[in-house]
Amino acid sequence: MKQAKIRLFVEQPLGAGQTVLLDRDQANYLFNVMRLSVGDLVALFNGRDGEFVGEVAEAGKRKGALVCREQTKPLQLPPDLWLCFAPIKKARTDFIVEKATEMGAAVIQPMQTEFTNSERIRRDRLQAHAVEAAEQCGGTYVPEVRDLTRLDRLLADWPEDRQIMFCDEALVGATETLGQAGGEKWAIFIGPEGGFSEPERAKLREIGHAVSLGPRILRADTAAVAALTVWQQHLGDWG
Amino acid sequence: MKQAKIRLFVEQPLGAGQTVLLDRDQANYLFNVMRLSVGDLVALFNGRDGEFVGEVAEAGKRKGALVCREQTKPLQLPPDLWLCFAPIKKARTDFIVEKATEMGAAVIQPMQTEFTNSERIRRDRLQAHAVEAAEQCGGTYVPEVRDLTRLDRLLADWPEDRQIMFCDEALVGATETLGQAGGEKWAIFIGPEGGFSEPERAKLREIGHAVSLGPRILRADTAAVAALTVWQQHLGDWG
Repeated sequence: MKQAKIRLFVEQPLGAGQTVLLDRDQANYLFNVMRLSVGDLVALFNGRDGEFVGEVAEAGKRKGALVCREQTKPLQLPPDLWLCFAPIKKARTDFIVEKATEMGAAVIQPMQTEFTNSERIRRDRLQAHAVEAAEQCGGTYVPEVRDLTRLDRLLADWPEDRQIMFCDEALVGATETLGQAGGEKWAIFIGPEGGFSEPERAKLREIGHAVSLGPRILRADTAAVAALTVWQQHLGDWG
Repeated sequence: MKQAKIRLFVEQPLGAGQTVLLDRDQANYLFNVMRLSVGDLVALFNGRDGEFVGEVAEAGKRKGALVCREQTKPLQLPPDLWLCFAPIKKARTDFIVEKATEMGAAVIQPMQTEFTNSERIRRDRLQAHAVEAAEQCGGTYVPEVRDLTRLDRLLADWPEDRQIMFCDEALVGATETLGQAGGEKWAIFIGPEGGFSEPERAKLREIGHAVSLGPRILRADTAAVAALTVWQQHLGDWG
C-alpha cells in the first residue's frame, strides 16, 4: 500500500468518507509542486478531529478534492501552555513560532515589552508558520498565534488560574520548585534581547515562578526552546 | 566610565598590560563597521584567559592594536560535553552550532549517519559561527568544531570513559535514569531528519543512555537544544 508522505492542514471537518475540497493554494501545492495525482494519499488534520488518510479524488490546477479514508491518529492536544515572547528579528521570530509548535505550546502570544524593538508582527504569517511546523512535526494540533499585546496590558488582564514561569537571567538554580507548583494552566514568558526591564522583572517575580536557564546568556530563540523543555519535563507531557 | 559593548574573540594571550594586535578583518570590524576609535573599550576573550577589557590604542583601516586593562570575567569552562549531530540544511546546521555554543557544549562533532544527506561541511565556517555565538552569549570559551566523521568510525574509537546520551524517538519518559548515571565526560547524539537507522539505534541503545524528548517529532535543530537542556539540567552546570 502506498503511504501518505505529505501532511496537510485543512479547515474542514474530517471523518471517514468525508470529502475535503482544496483551495487554490492547496491544489497548487499538492498537484503542481508535489506532483500528486488521483489515487495518491495525503495525511490530513484540522486541529480538531485527529489525522485521517485522504485519497486524491480530483486533481486540478486550481482546485481539487480528497476523500477521507480511515483515521490514522487520534487528536492529541498539547498541554494548556501559552508561550508569551517578545518578537525579535524576523527569522528568529519565525523560528520561535516553529519551535513552540514542535515543543507543544497551545497558544503563542507575542508581547511588546519595554525593550522590544519590533512594534508590529504579521499575525497571519506567523500563524501560517505554525501550520507548517505542525504539518512537519506530525502533530494533530496547531497552536493559536494571538495578536501582539503590550506586556502591561497582558498582565493587567491576567487570568487568576494561569500560572507563569519566566526565565530570570539574574538567577542560578531554583528550577526545583517548579515541579511542586502543579496546576494545569501555565504560561512561559521569554524576554526580548536585553531582557525584561527592572519594573517588568519585579512584577513577574511577584506573580510568577522564576527559573534559571544556566550561567550563559541565551538568545531569545534559544531561551524559548530551553524553557519549553524545562516546563515539559517538569509539568508537561514528556513524563 | 565607558563600557565595552563589543565582545571580540582573539587568538593572543590576554593579561593586564598585554598588547593585542588586530588582523585586517578585526580592524575592519571594529573601526569601519562598528566605528570605534582610540580610547574606546572592547571586551576580549581567547578561550583560555577569561575576559579582559581592552582599550583601542591604534585604529587603522587594516590594522590596529588594543591594550588589555583589567580582567572582567574569569575563564568559565563548559562541562566536558560533546554534541554529536548529523548535519542538515545549511541554515539549520549553522543554528545547531550557534545553539550548542550558547548552551555550553565543549566540543561540536558533526557526524555522518546512514540517513545523513550532507556529505561535506565547511569546518572553518562552522568554527567561525561558534566564535560569533560565544562573542554574543558572553561566554569566555569557544567550543571546538571537529571534522565530519562517520558515525561507525566515531563509535569504533569511542573513549571508554565518555558516556553517551541519545534521543530515541521510539521512547516515552525514561529521562529519570540520567541523573543517576553520573560521570564527568559525556556526549549527546542527535540523529538526522529521518532518525538513526535500525542498526545505529541498536548500537546506541547498547552503549548509551536513551532519553525521550516528548511525544512530538522534533526537527534535529530543536532536538539539539532540547537535549542540551535536559543534559544541563540533570548533569551539567545549570544546577
